[in-house]
Amino acid sequence: MFKWDFEELKVQIGLYIRKYRLVSSLSQFQLAIEIGLSKDYIGLIERGKTNPTLEILVDISNYINLDLSFAILKKSESELNSLKIEIKELEKKFKNQNKRKS
Amino acid sequence: MFKWDFEELKVQIGLYIRKYRLVSSLSQFQLAIEIGLSKDYIGLIERGKTNPTLEILVDISNYINLDLSFAILKKSESELNSLKIEIKELEKKFKNQNKRKS
Repeated sequence: MFKWDFEELKVQIGLYIRKYRLVSSLSQFQLAIEIGLSKDYIGLIERGKTNPTLEILVDISNYINLDLSFAILKKSESELNSLKIEIKELEKKFKNQNKRKS
Repeated sequence: MFKWDFEELKVQIGLYIRKYRLVSSLSQFQLAIEIGLSKDYIGLIERGKTNPTLEILVDISNYINLDLSFAILKKSESELNSLKIEIKELEKKFKNQNKRKS
């Protein structure tokens, strides 16, 4: 049975939330408004710097179409590295989209 | 992508925590002491009546050898019914063990 280190789990969940928020083309601010949280709190969750409740995790996951059970399933170092690369690409794309809008 | 209803998820997680606590031959009181929570709070979690933080879920899961990701994976009605039957059997066994001890 795999035992999570809480610090590592927070970071992994945060990465998945960031990825699926970007896939949903949402800013932290937009997501925060939808869930009824502050932009700063979404930032803390995405950086693995806070201890969210189960309800907050469910609300966020449902809104951005993230499978919560999958986000909590332990990933290998290489899977996490791929995820980080994917996030960087998504962030670039997201910034460019928003430039075109303004 | 499966979207959890928060009320249903709380109940499912509570059932798995009850099962694995009993498999670990722990009373709610014993588990509560180990995790630094009250017995009543463990009872609330097991009955799906509270909104625990991620850290509490990790602490409990690690202590009773429950795979948290598995506990959050959506189960069918029949899987939940089997789980409830299993819990009843475990509760009987646990009560009998404690009778013999006293």
